[in-house]
Amino acid sequence: MATLKVPSSVPSPAEDAEQLHKAFLGWGTNEALIISILAHRNGAQRALIRKTYNEAFGEDLLTSLDKELSSDFERAILVWTLEPAERDAFLANESTKRLTSSNWVIMEIACTRSSIDLFKAKQAYHARFKKSMEEDVAHHTSGDFRKLLVPLLSAFRYEGDEVNMRLAKSEAKILRDKISDKAYNDDEIIRILTTRSKAQINATLNHYNNEFGNAINKDLKPDSNDEFLKLLRATIKCLTSPEKYFEKVLRLAINKQGTDEWALTRVVTTRAEVDMERVKEEYHKRNSIPLERAIAGDTSGDYEKMLLALIGHGDA
Amino acid sequence: MATLKVPSSVPSPAEDAEQLHKAFLGWGTNEALIISILAHRNGAQRALIRKTYNEAFGEDLLTSLDKELSSDFERAILVWTLEPAERDAFLANESTKRLTSSNWVIMEIACTRSSIDLFKAKQAYHARFKKSMEEDVAHHTSGDFRKLLVPLLSAFRYEGDEVNMRLAKSEAKILRDKISDKAYNDDEIIRILTTRSKAQINATLNHYNNEFGNAINKDLKPDSNDEFLKLLRATIKCLTSPEKYFEKVLRLAINKQGTDEWALTRVVTTRAEVDMERVKEEYHKRNSIPLERAIAGDTSGDYEKMLLALIGHGDA
Repeated sequence: MATLKVPSSVPSPAEDAEQLHKAFLGWGTNEALIISILAHRNGAQRALIRKTYNEAFGEDLLTSLDKELSSDFERAILVWTLEPAERDAFLANESTKRLTSSNWVIMEIACTRSSIDLFKAKQAYHARFKKSMEEDVAHHTSGDFRKLLVPLLSAFRYEGDEVNMRLAKSEAKILRDKISDKAYNDDEIIRILTTRSKAQINATLNHYNNEFGNAINKDLKPDSNDEFLKLLRATIKCLTSPEKYFEKVLRLAINKQGTDEWALTRVVTTRAEVDMERVKEEYHKRNSIPLERAIAGDTSGDYEKMLLALIGHGDA
Repeated sequence: MATLKVPSSVPSPAEDAEQLHKAFLGWGTNEALIISILAHRNGAQRALIRKTYNEAFGEDLLTSLDKELSSDFERAILVWTLEPAERDAFLANESTKRLTSSNWVIMEIACTRSSIDLFKAKQAYHARFKKSMEEDVAHHTSGDFRKLLVPLLSAFRYEGDEVNMRLAKSEAKILRDKISDKAYNDDEIIRILTTRSKAQINATLNHYNNEFGNAINKDLKPDSNDEFLKLLRATIKCLTSPEKYFEKVLRLAINKQGTDEWALTRVVTTRAEVDMERVKEEYHKRNSIPLERAIAGDTSGDYEKMLLALIGHGDA
């Protein structure tokens, strides 16, 4: 469930665009006004505001925001205002230009979006970067990371609930055999995780757990510093329990010396319209503190206000 | 250019459906009438006829055709009548159940359809088979074949004309190095062929030819019986000169002892609305006989009439 709060009566896109334009005028910027509008409009509404703004003032709203704002608040507003497909294209592209740790972002996009949303992100990538997401990811990764990430990103998974139990058994056995042989990057492991539907993978991993006595992620922990194994475990978590995966990303971002605003902004902006309510529950359960208190304790100013608005605090 | 001939004035879908229904009635089936309608309607028109037929007579037109017709003619009519996305899903699925030689069909679908048409075929596959094309192909192939086919099928290639010449040079060098080492299944070769746009691949292969003195397919022929190398060469041909690839499939199908109707029907039905005019030109040039004469010499009866109608012979 989403945490985004949209007021029951929404001003027209033209009114919103007009108000935003006002917020940029004069001495200093009215950040509170910007938050009160953008943090309370859904993706379709934001897209209309952006279109109307461009028609009325001859400039992309994102360009205006970019001129007026700065630092973490700016990034949060910009990333949020993008339409989801465009935002995923932007985040994926950015990741191909950063360090290997950003492999996680690629994996996260590949595993937690619906098949059609992932496809739309790839279309947006073509339109914006004049290349394909796959070629950039393939080009910027290597070895086992590439072997896992490119097919994860490429497959168009079936999304029905149908499960083949015979197949679940036989593929659980394959996974077990490969893991026993420490063949963690084996083609069969990659094939199963990258092509089967999430429902089928879930059935396979349940069978694995029942039959072999351990959750698969336990068996994938012989060396907790192996970066590929970390990514493989995170992949499995994303495919089977995305809200737990996102809870952990938030936990690490907040607990880190100095807060990882890059991760914090990404999770809040990409999940606010999707499943942030569930992520908040997981967070509270795991950390014994509500997410809004943790965020308030670790951030400040307009950035804090923006994040809290997106996770459903304050009035719409 | 397509060879399909649609009459300047087309009857309504209801009239066409009515006529088809009449063709099935009474003693024997009126095959000539069926051909005169279905072989002269484009994909959108056939889809409407099928819908109207189902509403009027309570049966899928394909089921009626299946009851009335037989052998090669039946298969040609059925495969042709399917909408392109559904047809590709059907052909791909069929291929995962046949011998390894049918790997070529998967490759052909992956490499000669536009990115969006390939995507639609994958959607049609979900709808019809309740699984993904990728999982079935991955499950039914292995080794180097899987390593090439699954990413070929999965990538959503960029289709713009933009070419990066610096990249073309560096990737031509990579291809050359791997081929010199006889590392034909190397990750880098697969990455380049499966993720780069066709325009970019073309630029890379042109540079390869200029710089190293041989077309890449010449260098990939150390052993003309290696099945993987054959598939790799065919992949390159499909990506860069699809009409030459299809000419060769037709040539082999027709010259074969006993004609390969499976391949003949596939190429004619899938290309008639796309680029069959170019394929015919290539065929004539390479075999010194027009394709219609070759087909007429090798087939007979309604099957012959259907194929000739689709490649543009006879009146619409």
